[in-house]
Amino acid sequence: MARARATARVIKHPGVEDVNVQQVLEALADPARRTVVRTLAHSTTHLSCGSFDLPVGRSTSSHHFTVLREAGLLRQYYIGTTKMNALRTEELEVRFPGLLNAVISAADNEAASKGG
Amino acid sequence: MARARATARVIKHPGVEDVNVQQVLEALADPARRTVVRTLAHSTTHLSCGSFDLPVGRSTSSHHFTVLREAGLLRQYYIGTTKMNALRTEELEVRFPGLLNAVISAADNEAASKGG
Repeated sequence: MARARATARVIKHPGVEDVNVQQVLEALADPARRTVVRTLAHSTTHLSCGSFDLPVGRSTSSHHFTVLREAGLLRQYYIGTTKMNALRTEELEVRFPGLLNAVISAADNEAASKGG
Repeated sequence: MARARATARVIKHPGVEDVNVQQVLEALADPARRTVVRTLAHSTTHLSCGSFDLPVGRSTSSHHFTVLREAGLLRQYYIGTTKMNALRTEELEVRFPGLLNAVISAADNEAASKGG
């Protein structure tokens, strides 16, 4: 009798101690990825990948989420088949105090001054 | 009679209002450029381009200084034929509060933990 196979959708994340400045800055040095980060920072809930309004195709969008996760900025998990996203705000604040908030504020201010 | 031509060594810098998050993060997302920024941040004087210990050739080094200047992070000027560099700390603090200091601190901490 065939056994039902549990499809464990395990998503790998770097430990906070492995998060490095280079990868974090590279991840944030992209407008679409900053939009993801800003949207999550201003959301009261975790958000599915599909809920972001990014001006890129699905494959590029998926790449952006991967870059953010591998840099340690996002924690991703599944609810059913939906991939959810949370910012690793507290962990990053311990690792690199002030960095994420400063980038978010800078990007917010810039977007506001452009009416975006 | 030929006139002596003054070689005005004018170096262009973006106005602080034209400094943008994208360019600043791209400029900082490079280890050699972060070394320049950290070195200047910890120096009590402005420094000549030649005084930085960068693990790259002269042409690449020159490119890094240009990227930093065009992003609005450095102010460059000549003393005789020597190009000097200053961080635009105060201007950047007004434009993007906390950003430069957070990156410098993060890079300092990371370098310290690597013994670098």
